[in-house]
Order: sequence, then structure tokens, then C-alpha cells
Amino acid sequence: MISHKSSLKRRTISEDWLESTGRNDVVIYQTLPDFLIKNQDGVDISRWSLRGKYWLFVFSSEAAELEDPDFSKLLNKFAVQLRPSAGIAMITSSSSGVLSRLHKEHNLTFDLFSDKEMVIWKSVNKDLPDSTGECFCTVLLDPWGRIRKVFPDHSAEDFSRFIVQEMHEMVRHDLALNAEIHTRRAFRAFSSRTVERNSILRILEAGHLAPSCMNKQPWRFIVIDDSEGLKRVQESLSEGNYWMKKAPVLIAAHATKRDDCTLNDRRNYYLFGTGLAVGFMIIQATQMGMVLHPVAGYNPIELKKLLQVPEEAVMITLMALGYPGDPETLGDKHRKIETGDRIRKSLDQVVSWFS
Amino acid sequence: MISHKSSLKRRTISEDWLESTGRNDVVIYQTLPDFLIKNQDGVDISRWSLRGKYWLFVFSSEAAELEDPDFSKLLNKFAVQLRPSAGIAMITSSSSGVLSRLHKEHNLTFDLFSDKEMVIWKSVNKDLPDSTGECFCTVLLDPWGRIRKVFPDHSAEDFSRFIVQEMHEMVRHDLALNAEIHTRRAFRAFSSRTVERNSILRILEAGHLAPSCMNKQPWRFIVIDDSEGLKRVQESLSEGNYWMKKAPVLIAAHATKRDDCTLNDRRNYYLFGTGLAVGFMIIQATQMGMVLHPVAGYNPIELKKLLQVPEEAVMITLMALGYPGDPETLGDKHRKIETGDRIRKSLDQVVSWFS
Repeated sequence: MISHKSSLKRRTISEDWLESTGRNDVVIYQTLPDFLIKNQDGVDISRWSLRGKYWLFVFSSEAAELEDPDFSKLLNKFAVQLRPSAGIAMITSSSSGVLSRLHKEHNLTFDLFSDKEMVIWKSVNKDLPDSTGECFCTVLLDPWGRIRKVFPDHSAEDFSRFIVQEMHEMVRHDLALNAEIHTRRAFRAFSSRTVERNSILRILEAGHLAPSCMNKQPWRFIVIDDSEGLKRVQESLSEGNYWMKKAPVLIAAHATKRDDCTLNDRRNYYLFGTGLAVGFMIIQATQMGMVLHPVAGYNPIELKKLLQVPEEAVMITLMALGYPGDPETLGDKHRKIETGDRIRKSLDQVVSWFS
Repeated sequence: MISHKSSLKRRTISEDWLESTGRNDVVIYQTLPDFLIKNQDGVDISRWSLRGKYWLFVFSSEAAELEDPDFSKLLNKFAVQLRPSAGIAMITSSSSGVLSRLHKEHNLTFDLFSDKEMVIWKSVNKDLPDSTGECFCTVLLDPWGRIRKVFPDHSAEDFSRFIVQEMHEMVRHDLALNAEIHTRRAFRAFSSRTVERNSILRILEAGHLAPSCMNKQPWRFIVIDDSEGLKRVQESLSEGNYWMKKAPVLIAAHATKRDDCTLNDRRNYYLFGTGLAVGFMIIQATQMGMVLHPVAGYNPIELKKLLQVPEEAVMITLMALGYPGDPETLGDKHRKIETGDRIRKSLDQVVSWFS
């Protein structure tokens, strides 16, 4: 009898985490489902028509809460203050006709949505136990209809104290410089920690989701992650790229002109498009706590031969991938760059305004 | 007397939000300061040597908490489970020698850091009122030393119930597909909402932080955001790009070969590098709730003349920028694409593994 020892081994939290990277259902934010409902004016509302604004969805099983003058006064005030970046909608199962009357009666400045089948509420609450029909939660949505925060309850006090503050925090987060772009540097020090294939695939998937001219997807990637392969590829590196020998993974990117748009005025898009995909890969790697550092310093003829890349392709970059390590392992010059300030031309030198 | 009415106007929350985009001090995650402390073995610990792992920092004004056998047992267990993705360190003001003795005495599997001046604790708590010297907070750090979560207190119960769960959530977030890459599509429907110049600048700043060959920064951008300028630029659009006439901002990107690396084997990097910068701009715009859609369909000769771009430059793309709008404003074909599924080659068609 064969004993399947490995499957009986007690898993560590780290192993669970790594496995979850391979699952396609892991999304950071859940998105609203497709729906078609009406507002207080009888106008169709879909998840598409809500795009472009932040929304506070206040769910209420009946519109009765509007009878509380303090609550509707408070929502009125916030609705005015939040314009034009954000809207407030109270969502009930009441008909559009009832909502129209209530909207006029109480002089409301926020929207009332009639979701008779409670489609939106059910999608937000799908992880909760079966509903009794009572629903008073509040949901913060971003301009893409992504559910950013769910509050299980709401009252006038919640709004004044927490909910509008949380919305403010969300907007501040979104308007700030992207965290991965802010953190990313062309780091060179790698730790010896290996990179799981699931993590490599996630980074490649991110690059492959980049846009391209007529969706031609001209990028091609070759992953080198075993010691024998790494040794052979390292031979084509230029001397200054000694630090890449410590990276546990190398990824070569190549592209061919005829795989992408070529316009009759000599513009072609295969290099631009591959750059865009590499940009997305760098963002993904940074989010995952890794360095992805593209270089140009290698012998492209040797490398193309070794990796069996067609003659007509351009071997545009070789990238080092791994977890960041101790800067002390670098040479003097590179150690200073690793921990030094970022150097850029002023924005004025690369941007102008036409009028 | 001139009345400065505008400065007396009551500001809305939206106005406050927009203003905050122009502030350079708005960062999503605060990063650990530079420090140099010792662990229980007398080894130097800096923020650089901690990179590449998640960390749970457990602050304690004295190492006395270690005397609680339940607490140190619990930390021991978690430290083993979290390897190799994450580490646990208890940070106190005790000397390295004291910590060395305690580490052996209690058979600890987690680290003890000696931060005599409480440099790290002060940086984490700089927004709190003056400290009394008592500090028991717990901090979650990501592999970049970014402070992701601060818990004001800690106990064995907190760890079992919340803190390790929160760490798990953070890792799941980081290992998932990047939210902006997941959300981004080549959307065409724009709302009429204008885009503030601060927001345009933030997007350009993000692109300008992209890496480039030898840090040459070859990208050049021209922003068109007034109605007269937009009208003139729109004349160079190809017919299929009718939808770009609704975008409140257009950004032209151009680059010149001699502004970037050219290697003697005919490789050049100006188009690849500009693609990378545009990739970063798209991520930033998506995070801000906006569509940034680059196209190739325009008359580059007319456009270069109008925008006074040198003859030798390549006008590589024109980008439409704005908030997403109602897909009903699009023609039949584009409306279907706007709300339809994403189309990609299988990953196998663009990725191969060398060994």
C-alpha cells in the first residue's frame, strides 16, 4: 500500500496563502451584478449608468425610514455636499410610483431606487445567512461599481460618525498616488527565497490583461526558473548585471513587428504594447511584495539562440524576479542606488499643455 | 474694496477631496523610517534587512509580557505557521543582552528586537498624543515595510481572534490580481463630468515614475483640456474614434529615438519605455475612477504639426481621459464591446517555460 504522506501533512498558513494565489475567484473587490431597476422619476438605472461616481447605497426594506425627519434631513445635507463626486441612493422594494410621491413630499435631494426583487441587496449580502426580508445595511461603491465597504446597519448617528468619514477615506485612497507605483524602484538586491509558479503565473496574467492595438497582444514571455536554465541564461548577461545572478526567476520578453498593428505612416505598436504589458507586470509583482526589474544589458543574439526565439523577433527585455534582499550583497555603486533617493526630471520637462 | 467672495464660500466635501489630490503628502501607506537596531543575537536589523517578508511587530515597553506563558506560546505557534512568508518580532526597549537571555529561557521561535530609543514605535504612533512610555500596539507590515494596519492594543485573545486573521486578509489582498488591472477595460463611453487639473497631474506623475533604460525618461506628454484645443485635435481623429469627441481631456504621447538607449544590435527603448509609462498612467487613472484609453487611429502628421512636435518624434498614441459614462451613447458595435466579456488569447499562447 502506498502511503500518501504529503497529503496528510499539516499545512501551514503560508501554504494556504500560496495556494490561494492560483485561484481565479480571488478578487480584491466584488463588483455589482447586472441589474435594471427604476428611480423615483421612473428612469432606468443599471450598473452601467451608475459608473463614474461614488455611491452610498442605503438599503431599507420599506421606505418607512424616510418618515424619520432627522434621517432624511441628514441624507439631504450629505447628498448636496458630496456632489458631483458622489451620490446617495436609498434602495427599497417599494414601487417607483410610491417613491416618486415620497421624494416630492419630503423634498429629497438624494435618489430613491425601486429594487422590487432586491437583486442588489441579495448580491451584496450573498455571504450572509438567509434574509428575513429585513435589510438596513449601507454599502460604499466606487466609480466602477466595486463594493468597497459594507456596514451591516445604519442610523443617523452612523452617518454622522462613521459612514461619511469612511467614504472620505476611500476617496482619499483612490486619489492618492497608486501605492505600487509609489513603492516601486529598480531594486537589485534579491533574497534567496524561491518564487512559487502560481505567483509567476499571476504576474504573467496581469501583463496579459494589458490593452494593445486592436487587441493584438503582441507580447511573448519565456520564464526561466530552474537552476540549470538560469545558469545558461546568466551567461548572456552583461557584466554590470552581475546582481541578476541572485534572482530565482528570469523572464525574457520578446515581440515581433508583424504580430501587431503597423500603420502606413511607419508607426508600429509591438514594442509600445510590450512595454505596457511589462508595466502591468511590475505593478502586480510590487503588490505581491516582489521586485520585477527589466534590463537591456544582455547579448540578444546569444539569448535568442538559447531560448529558440525566431530571428525576426526583438528580444526587448530580460527581467529579474524575486523577493527583495539585503542591499549589503550589492557592489558599492548599486548599494547607494538601492537605498538612495529617486531621480526624475521635473514634470515640466516631460509635460506641456496645449491651448 | 474688493470682496474675496470665493474664499468665503462654504466648501463642499467634494472640493476638499479634489484639493487633497494635489498634495504630495497623501500616501496610501506610510513606510517605516530608517533605523538600525539589534535582535536577540546582536545582529543589526534595518528596514532594508526586513524587506521581502510580512512582519507582525508586537510592541511592548518592557519584555515582561514574555513572562506570560500563554502569550509567548501563542506567538511561538504563529511564528512557525507563518514561515517563510512572514515573521513575528516583539519590539521592546530592553537591551540585546537581556533579550538574548529571555529568548533562550523561553525557547522562543520568534524574534526579539531591541529598540532602545523606541524609534520605530514613535514613527508608528506619531499621530497619537505624547506617549507615557507605555506601548502595547501591534503593527502589520508588508514586504516593503509599509505599515498596513495598526492595532492599539494586544493580548493573546486579540491574536487568536483578529490579528492573524487580518494578516491573512492582507496577504490574500496582495496575492490577488491587482484590482485596477482587473477592472480596467478599453471603455469608450464618457460622462460630461470635467476632470480637475490636479487629477490630470497625478496621472502624469504616475507615468513619470515608470522605470526606463538608464533612467532616460523618454516619454513626452501634451495635455489638451480646453474646448478650443479639443476641437482642433479632434479633427485629426479617424472616423472610428468618434467616441473620443466626448472625452473632456486628450493626452498625446510622443517620444524620440535619440532620447533613449540605442544598443548596437538595433534594439532601441523609446517606444517600449513610453508604453511602460502609459501602463502606469492607466493604472493610476483606473484607481481614480477614470478611463484612460490610448488609441492609434489619428493622422500623426496633422497632429504633430498642430501640437508642434518635432518631425523626428513618433506620435505613438493619443489617449482619451474622463469619467465613464452611459454605454447607450455609443454605436451598436461599441456598446456591445463596452459591456461584453474580455477577449484574450490563452496564457499558453504567450508564455513558455525554458528548462
